[in-house]
Amino acid sequence: MIDVGIVGGTGYTGVELLRLLAQHPQARVSAITSRKDAGTRVADIFPSLRRRYDALEFVEPDKAALKDCRIVFFATPHGVAMAQARELVGAGVRIVDLAADFRLRDPAVFERWYKMPHSCPDLLAESVYGLPEVNRDAIRKARIVGNPGCYPTAVQLGFLPLIEAGAVDTKHLIADCKSGVSGAGRKAEVNLLFAEASDNFAAYGVKGHRHHPEIVQGLALASKAPVSLAFTPHLTPAIRGIFATLYAPLVKPELDLQSLYEKRYANEPFVDVMPAGSAPDTRSVRASNMLRIAVHRPAGTDLAMVLAVEDNLVKGAAGQAIQNMNLMFGLPEATGLEALAVLP
Amino acid sequence: MIDVGIVGGTGYTGVELLRLLAQHPQARVSAITSRKDAGTRVADIFPSLRRRYDALEFVEPDKAALKDCRIVFFATPHGVAMAQARELVGAGVRIVDLAADFRLRDPAVFERWYKMPHSCPDLLAESVYGLPEVNRDAIRKARIVGNPGCYPTAVQLGFLPLIEAGAVDTKHLIADCKSGVSGAGRKAEVNLLFAEASDNFAAYGVKGHRHHPEIVQGLALASKAPVSLAFTPHLTPAIRGIFATLYAPLVKPELDLQSLYEKRYANEPFVDVMPAGSAPDTRSVRASNMLRIAVHRPAGTDLAMVLAVEDNLVKGAAGQAIQNMNLMFGLPEATGLEALAVLP
Amino acid sequence: MIDVGIVGGTGYTGVELLRLLAQHPQARVSAITSRKDAGTRVADIFPSLRRRYDALEFVEPDKAALKDCRIVFFATPHGVAMAQARELVGAGVRIVDLAADFRLRDPAVFERWYKMPHSCPDLLAESVYGLPEVNRDAIRKARIVGNPGCYPTAVQLGFLPLIEAGAVDTKHLIADCKSGVSGAGRKAEVNLLFAEASDNFAAYGVKGHRHHPEIVQGLALASKAPVSLAFTPHLTPAIRGIFATLYAPLVKPELDLQSLYEKRYANEPFVDVMPAGSAPDTRSVRASNMLRIAVHRPAGTDLAMVLAVEDNLVKGAAGQAIQNMNLMFGLPEATGLEALAVLP
Amino acid sequence: MIDVGIVGGTGYTGVELLRLLAQHPQARVSAITSRKDAGTRVADIFPSLRRRYDALEFVEPDKAALKDCRIVFFATPHGVAMAQARELVGAGVRIVDLAADFRLRDPAVFERWYKMPHSCPDLLAESVYGLPEVNRDAIRKARIVGNPGCYPTAVQLGFLPLIEAGAVDTKHLIADCKSGVSGAGRKAEVNLLFAEASDNFAAYGVKGHRHHPEIVQGLALASKAPVSLAFTPHLTPAIRGIFATLYAPLVKPELDLQSLYEKRYANEPFVDVMPAGSAPDTRSVRASNMLRIAVHRPAGTDLAMVLAVEDNLVKGAAGQAIQNMNLMFGLPEATGLEALAVLP
Repeated sequence: MIDVGIVGGTGYTGVELLRLLAQHPQARVSAITSRKDAGTRVADIFPSLRRRYDALEFVEPDKAALKDCRIVFFATPHGVAMAQARELVGAGVRIVDLAADFRLRDPAVFERWYKMPHSCPDLLAESVYGLPEVNRDAIRKARIVGNPGCYPTAVQLGFLPLIEAGAVDTKHLIADCKSGVSGAGRKAEVNLLFAEASDNFAAYGVKGHRHHPEIVQGLALASKAPVSLAFTPHLTPAIRGIFATLYAPLVKPELDLQSLYEKRYANEPFVDVMPAGSAPDTRSVRASNMLRIAVHRPAGTDLAMVLAVEDNLVKGAAGQAIQNMNLMFGLPEATGLEALAVLP
Repeated sequence: MIDVGIVGGTGYTGVELLRLLAQHPQARVSAITSRKDAGTRVADIFPSLRRRYDALEFVEPDKAALKDCRIVFFATPHGVAMAQARELVGAGVRIVDLAADFRLRDPAVFERWYKMPHSCPDLLAESVYGLPEVNRDAIRKARIVGNPGCYPTAVQLGFLPLIEAGAVDTKHLIADCKSGVSGAGRKAEVNLLFAEASDNFAAYGVKGHRHHPEIVQGLALASKAPVSLAFTPHLTPAIRGIFATLYAPLVKPELDLQSLYEKRYANEPFVDVMPAGSAPDTRSVRASNMLRIAVHRPAGTDLAMVLAVEDNLVKGAAGQAIQNMNLMFGLPEATGLEALAVLP
Repeated sequence: MIDVGIVGGTGYTGVELLRLLAQHPQARVSAITSRKDAGTRVADIFPSLRRRYDALEFVEPDKAALKDCRIVFFATPHGVAMAQARELVGAGVRIVDLAADFRLRDPAVFERWYKMPHSCPDLLAESVYGLPEVNRDAIRKARIVGNPGCYPTAVQLGFLPLIEAGAVDTKHLIADCKSGVSGAGRKAEVNLLFAEASDNFAAYGVKGHRHHPEIVQGLALASKAPVSLAFTPHLTPAIRGIFATLYAPLVKPELDLQSLYEKRYANEPFVDVMPAGSAPDTRSVRASNMLRIAVHRPAGTDLAMVLAVEDNLVKGAAGQAIQNMNLMFGLPEATGLEALAVLP
Repeated sequence: MIDVGIVGGTGYTGVELLRLLAQHPQARVSAITSRKDAGTRVADIFPSLRRRYDALEFVEPDKAALKDCRIVFFATPHGVAMAQARELVGAGVRIVDLAADFRLRDPAVFERWYKMPHSCPDLLAESVYGLPEVNRDAIRKARIVGNPGCYPTAVQLGFLPLIEAGAVDTKHLIADCKSGVSGAGRKAEVNLLFAEASDNFAAYGVKGHRHHPEIVQGLALASKAPVSLAFTPHLTPAIRGIFATLYAPLVKPELDLQSLYEKRYANEPFVDVMPAGSAPDTRSVRASNMLRIAVHRPAGTDLAMVLAVEDNLVKGAAGQAIQNMNLMFGLPEATGLEALAVLP
């Protein structure tokens, strides 16, 4: 049984970790922190957890027995994980950070987008970007995993087969993305209110979004050519779900795209290439760790178009974090993550 | 491993049975019927089931190997189960009907509300009403279980402690109920369209609803006095969830209602009495088999007020059906039903 | 042309006043205040107002030329209107307060529920409760109108015909009410987030809600007998709309309720008694000032049941305020309020 | 006063015409047809119309006094308007068809996409495509106007300034579009049910959508170069609203796009170019006839990106039809269409 710690358990990724780990046969949550809610039982804040986590209480961050855990998940704002990472890894604890501290390889890029210095560039250098479909072997051995962002998971997995095959012009990539509102976190902000976000559809982040450099980093690694990407995030009135519509000019028009995608992801437990002609929807992955992809060639154009859907809180956050944990501890990769999507 | 058959697998209770049974360690779906979709793979209609039910196909009702199953669930319109019940039980197959054929003890009441004669009153007589919190022992031995309706589950479990204790005037009961739209089924009807039901709240069935006689039947059994009930169903723009707000005049005002409820449901795996003063919400049970209850005494009145929430497709339908199956086959009652609610 | 001032224009009732007044042929908004957004154009915060309010700017409360207005609407938190009322009425400005300062006749009741002393009991004494269907004549002459709360408007108009006719036992009234989320205001609170309130249904205020004393005050005035009311507010995932389901024991069972309601509201421009047997829905009044009512007698009970729907921001707030303004200035009561509901 | 006839009044565009025309000071609906609901009052089907259309009844199509009207709106399925057009224009009645019969200039293109022969190519030849921002003068004189589709309105108005200025490579246009569910009409189809479309986001029409040739036709007219367009429609869980995200490679990178758009639409009553850097949302135009546009240049790309929002039932259908009627009858173009968007 793996003892798990969670730092910052009151946000949506925190409560999703609790929900998913309750189904995990070989892990248990033994410590969870919250500065604001220390002393409160998690089930008093999230009644959905009653009967399963009745004894677990939030504790002050500095009083939590995190060093007695074998792995700690950071479900915190950016900057928290890097402040505590050295002490934890020094104590032999492995880390999966669900924030951005260990996502961007270049500390300068991190600093530009997150407006704070990186406090442990050496740990960043040894950390692994936690996208199993790309870095599976490195993740197994990693002490620190930077869990990918929700948009970057969908956009990278959507584009990778095309880019790895040199099939598209990587200087003209477009990712038109739509996210459910939970992607913005459990923050009391006016624009996230039901009365603002319901029956509405909006673009946001039009002047630049922090997931842009993360996506470009991953695509550039896979490509031999430089990458230029227009990335447009939109807010759709759904709780969960990311829908990525990707466009790229084909440079190998003779390629069988369906076959390309099926081969690339043939052995992936959590990437489902749908039949040719499919139009996926986000509910087909709601509350599950699956990402589904369909690839198209729009009539009368020279484009490849990819449609990718995931649950931003599962494959886009907590589920992928547990998938990484499974790899790190030598468990079957899908352990505890087999639940089907909730439909309707 | 219990071989399970499902008759009528293309509605919401059918796909919910498939979702939940995929998590069940001791049952497998070996036959599923659909007249309309015979020959089609279930995962082609419900992509959420891909990777888990890739081989399962809908078959014509009369070609399905239902007699090779140990249990058959009817997720059909009313009237189908009673037409096939005799042959199946004769072959040693046990039945859980998720429609109304085996809910109402009196065939005359059934005929009045469902506008069709009851074709097997003798089987109806031996069948058991599948509310485990009331009929647990009888369910274990039943050949045929009439699985309760969604509203009746919430309203009966909400009222029962008060009525069993003789604490309220059963001639003046009110059940003001609110249901998510999936409760109406996967039927193409204009009033269930997104553009009609979204951003809206409506009463319906104001001239009489079929769940009224079912609720009254259960409450009358529990009471020594006659029962009179105003039952008002409403449609709320949510996919899942029933919220029952119940009112009854207290005749034993000295009673400790909180304690009454906690004792009544102390050993129930799927009834959660919330702390005094709680206001439950439907998302706290979304996609789970739990029903949560809070009991109140509105200030300045002589009333007891009960708030009960459930997922209409789980505890109100497919989950309760599997709970009944577990009882019928001697399994731990919660087998396969432990998943926590999906929140947010 | 009536010059109108609005104090506190950044909430939902403020922006709704702006929307409705843009349609009003005899009123114009000449001053609007906001401490936080002073110096900003209203159309920069609410792009829906572009092209119509391009010149209007929020000004500091103490710099606004409110005394040059003929009427000032307070769309503020409780306590603001009573602090400024004396100075404004002294200057000949008439006031409609959309908050609670002038709703409760008894300052002691106000203080108990709103946790602040009432600063001008003399003005409260002369002020008029702005429910036109009850106080039309007094409103015409009033200097200060306390605009009713959203729930109190629906519940009072729903119950009044029964109570005025002595048709029900007023010691056993129940108001089971459901509100869209905008009723809670434009406040950044976690429980109002889309990801919390969507696909959910919840009770709230179970220990007491500030609209309870306001409703009881109005019903007691109409009744000769004391009034006892259970009032249960719920939150439904819609932007706008209040649905009130009212129950009362009939003491005059021979009464023709349909006729009673039709007569009581025969000349009301904004109360629509629907045909016998109707089940109203909130979208039938969305964005309009109409309140629709259906009255029923649930089979097998001795109850009257009333279903009343309104838009909480229009008849429940800004629309009713303009209706009051029309009365105060001798205009036809429906001026500027004729727009039909937005459906779908 | 203009007497207006509506053929096919039970769909969403029909009821929206009724809602908007109720506000129009110089038009009145004097005939409305429905085969299915002949003899029923419109207010009995749409209670939102009570008190305003209490006398208006649906009549059989062949019994309606359409020839006594000065204009007839067809809010019907495709194929109805062209069958009745000759007789009506022969009687001096002018026509606005909200379906597709008079949108596509080339009958062969119409036949390919709508799977029916065009029954009056001569009338098609004289008819005018009803996009006032392009064809204002021709509309004034037209006997028959083909009212544009909802997507084509947003996509054409979004792209036109770029294309008219020769600023983009028209062989590589992308229109990633998102529509609320009412765009699919008031049809009882499973995929439009609340329980299917809510909390979901989906692509559809990936193999070709009927609005594609209509958009290409309009853009090709404006361009000197051939046009190639990838058009991807998506369904978003909102009742109303279209959001078009448009991408095109800039060939004149030195151009000031903000100024280009502001000049092109400077005098348009219903196209609002938002300030540079804006991210529009659909609720800012909900229930109004305004279309709002923001133009961007995504960092690090050679693209122009345009964000355009409209209400699919107003500027995308019924509102634009009335705008066309105003032009045809010499009224101020905005007559009856001034209502502000409903927000929240």
